[in-house]
Amino acid sequence: MSGYFARAADAARFSGEKATKADLFRGERLLAGLNCFEPGQAQAVHAHAGADKFYLLLSGKASMAVGPEVRVAEAGDLVWAPAGVPHGVVEALERTVMLVAIAPPPGK
Amino acid sequence: MSGYFARAADAARFSGEKATKADLFRGERLLAGLNCFEPGQAQAVHAHAGADKFYLLLSGKASMAVGPEVRVAEAGDLVWAPAGVPHGVVEALERTVMLVAIAPPPGK
Repeated sequence: MSGYFARAADAARFSGEKATKADLFRGERLLAGLNCFEPGQAQAVHAHAGADKFYLLLSGKASMAVGPEVRVAEAGDLVWAPAGVPHGVVEALERTVMLVAIAPPPGK
Repeated sequence: MSGYFARAADAARFSGEKATKADLFRGERLLAGLNCFEPGQAQAVHAHAGADKFYLLLSGKASMAVGPEVRVAEAGDLVWAPAGVPHGVVEALERTVMLVAIAPPPGK
């Protein structure tokens, strides 16, 4: 990883305890990070007031919820969670790595 | 593509004339789109004042520039272009599809 280039999957870390998060790059207006899940792990449904977010699955497969929709997402699928709309990971069906983009970053 | 879910590569479109762009999702604070390149195509170096951006290569291979760095990026690589830092695609070395996130979206 240089100042501007990263192989996203190299930052993937897994825990048997719970899903993990890692920041890749953080700017004033945008955060890129990873969410990593072992099979069966989840992320509780939540919402970000005033922040748009998406997940892009890099590997694996997971049941994802956004608003009233629940779908199985796989590598290459983008899941869009606009500001204020509840979203989460119902359950990872395989070991799963998701790129996450959120704007603005938490704490802003 | 539903309101919240999309298979990113399904939106890929190529032109022999020039690289193409397609929006996937646009919010108040974040835009997710695709940039698609045939081999040999490029994107001129440019900068976004006040907007953070990244590319995530979904397929293919391209020589990418950010600030003083030039590297070959492949599927799974993330290329971070912070606000104000010049960046572009020197040359696609294969047919290449990039997810692009930019915050805030152009026009904001």
